[in-house]
Amino acid sequence: MPSNDNGNVSIIKGQEGVATISFFHPAQNSLPSNLLQQLTDQINNAGSDAEVKVIVIKSEGDRTFCAGASFDELLQIKDKDAGTQFFSGFANVINACRKSSRIIIARVQGKAVGGGVGLAAAADYCMATQFASIKLSELAIGIGPFVISPAVIRKVGLPAFSQLTICATDFQTAQWAKDKGLYNEVFEDIARLDASVDELAKKLASYNPDALTSLKQILWEGTDNWDNLLGRRAAISGELVLSEFTQQALQNFLGKK
Amino acid sequence: MPSNDNGNVSIIKGQEGVATISFFHPAQNSLPSNLLQQLTDQINNAGSDAEVKVIVIKSEGDRTFCAGASFDELLQIKDKDAGTQFFSGFANVINACRKSSRIIIARVQGKAVGGGVGLAAAADYCMATQFASIKLSELAIGIGPFVISPAVIRKVGLPAFSQLTICATDFQTAQWAKDKGLYNEVFEDIARLDASVDELAKKLASYNPDALTSLKQILWEGTDNWDNLLGRRAAISGELVLSEFTQQALQNFLGKK
Amino acid sequence: MPSNDNGNVSIIKGQEGVATISFFHPAQNSLPSNLLQQLTDQINNAGSDAEVKVIVIKSEGDRTFCAGASFDELLQIKDKDAGTQFFSGFANVINACRKSSRIIIARVQGKAVGGGVGLAAAADYCMATQFASIKLSELAIGIGPFVISPAVIRKVGLPAFSQLTICATDFQTAQWAKDKGLYNEVFEDIARLDASVDELAKKLASYNPDALTSLKQILWEGTDNWDNLLGRRAAISGELVLSEFTQQALQNFLGKK
Repeated sequence: MPSNDNGNVSIIKGQEGVATISFFHPAQNSLPSNLLQQLTDQINNAGSDAEVKVIVIKSEGDRTFCAGASFDELLQIKDKDAGTQFFSGFANVINACRKSSRIIIARVQGKAVGGGVGLAAAADYCMATQFASIKLSELAIGIGPFVISPAVIRKVGLPAFSQLTICATDFQTAQWAKDKGLYNEVFEDIARLDASVDELAKKLASYNPDALTSLKQILWEGTDNWDNLLGRRAAISGELVLSEFTQQALQNFLGKK
Repeated sequence: MPSNDNGNVSIIKGQEGVATISFFHPAQNSLPSNLLQQLTDQINNAGSDAEVKVIVIKSEGDRTFCAGASFDELLQIKDKDAGTQFFSGFANVINACRKSSRIIIARVQGKAVGGGVGLAAAADYCMATQFASIKLSELAIGIGPFVISPAVIRKVGLPAFSQLTICATDFQTAQWAKDKGLYNEVFEDIARLDASVDELAKKLASYNPDALTSLKQILWEGTDNWDNLLGRRAAISGELVLSEFTQQALQNFLGKK
Repeated sequence: MPSNDNGNVSIIKGQEGVATISFFHPAQNSLPSNLLQQLTDQINNAGSDAEVKVIVIKSEGDRTFCAGASFDELLQIKDKDAGTQFFSGFANVINACRKSSRIIIARVQGKAVGGGVGLAAAADYCMATQFASIKLSELAIGIGPFVISPAVIRKVGLPAFSQLTICATDFQTAQWAKDKGLYNEVFEDIARLDASVDELAKKLASYNPDALTSLKQILWEGTDNWDNLLGRRAAISGELVLSEFTQQALQNFLGKK
């Protein structure tokens, strides 16, 4: 695909009741505001379609699942409101997953970084390949994984989240992510991953829809405050991103490429 | 034992302060309402006996620990009130364990399914054999593990609970259950299990009773809402069990036997 | 050092923004009231020093990290108020760690018992050697790990805490403590531990201080009630310690030495 591509989000609704939402961005599937908005819209779209029983979220390509926030867009943020608005994009995706009445499976073919880890954590079930290492690099660029932390802690617990955050330059393996609870299953390669995602999604779609809806509700019980919570978190990140530390770190990073 | 046996619950109170509550049902130690009520009564009985310092819960036989809800009885449920009442039987057992002032050890010799997993999770300490695989098959029969989920999530966390529920036709090994926190110890065979249960129960019974009572309280701190919560959950399952999906699944299952 | 040494707490503030707080007591780094108070003071001191970016907590010697409460002092407790006051010393240290605006790394070179486990758990990141086994022996002396339980459960979860408490005479390995989340990293020996603590502390100290402050806040979100909670817990232990069971157990233990 052309490198000047701005990315896209697509949805395919299969006959067996499985909707597959896929996102793409040429910079390692990083997410600028417009893709975050499209992801939110498609999750809502699928959840309100009576024909859709189960949602699969995936990304394009056979490399990085998601590199997190778009660094290009982070560098363009010039005031706190713009920063808050940008990070609210991740909050909106997570809250859309949370409030969807459908069970959501994340299909993670490769590395997940920052907000990409948050996206994987927002799914109800997460299947990955052995290449799907994870990293929360936010601290290294002067911000923090504050918007995604409730979703990530909900899956991996506080100690593993602390480790990911504090060791901001280290990748943890897919096996580690499975041991900690982020991934439910890890596969040898993409072909095996896809076969298993397909099989599970269709099986789930064949179950009693009312039971699935009740299951979704109890899985997210106690998170009603996340609309506000993630919004407040977006404001924290939106202010930190303006720091000299962050601007310098981002320019260093983009200059190195 | 005769196959027309309706099962039973017994209690033995040993001299060292250990009460052992044992249940039996010919259909793989599955639990109809009357056994759930007897279990609740015996847990309450043991907890109000000053001579009893520690409670052990076990089942008869050397195969399945507990197959969960009695399918025969599920098929006889014809309205929502009856359904709610049936599932409240599990809520009552879990709440009896929770509110008992005594530390409860579960002794799990073999497979635990559905409500059987909930029973193991409601104990304060759980010892099992390597054969004690677990499965939450509720979704496959159109219902869900809603009454037991607070107890199971409290032990294994949300991701493991999600996996058990979503992969409703898969057994997870006893080792997996130990890694996730449901089982505290896993033994090679029943003889070793029994020796260790006996040793631990007697040791606990020898400790300062006031310290044990305080320990029990702090282990269950924050669960005061479970009387209401599990009751509401029973109502969800009690309605789902009336679905065409469930009735068909149960008949298919019982027909296959 | 002389065996009649009453122990001490020291602090060193390095140029790179790392403050290292170290405690010592001749009885296996056990903690009497005066050391608990000094630890609390030094944690507060470091947290209010603008030059300090990161705090490391360690103990002296190459054997036991911390043996928990001072048995000598426990034996001198003659009424409930004195008992509550003693255990409040641990509550104060944990709350000082919790409320510090600085990220705290614990450096655990050897065994941690009772309150020593609580101290390790109160840090934000915990690095240990393979020799750093852990034990909660409180029940065996007629009390319980009630003051430290919120901190320990926050890290290792309820089942692992239950196991530590209920199996009061068993050490669990450093690897177990890592698997459960108490330790983030386990090293072969003290030299490797120290090199890694040093490297991580300096790296953290180089990050955006505002991001570190926000991180600290979200890591402890939801624990505002611990001032009261740990105080109430101290009162429980402060009463249990007066029991005949405890006094006998402590005298047996000290007599054996």
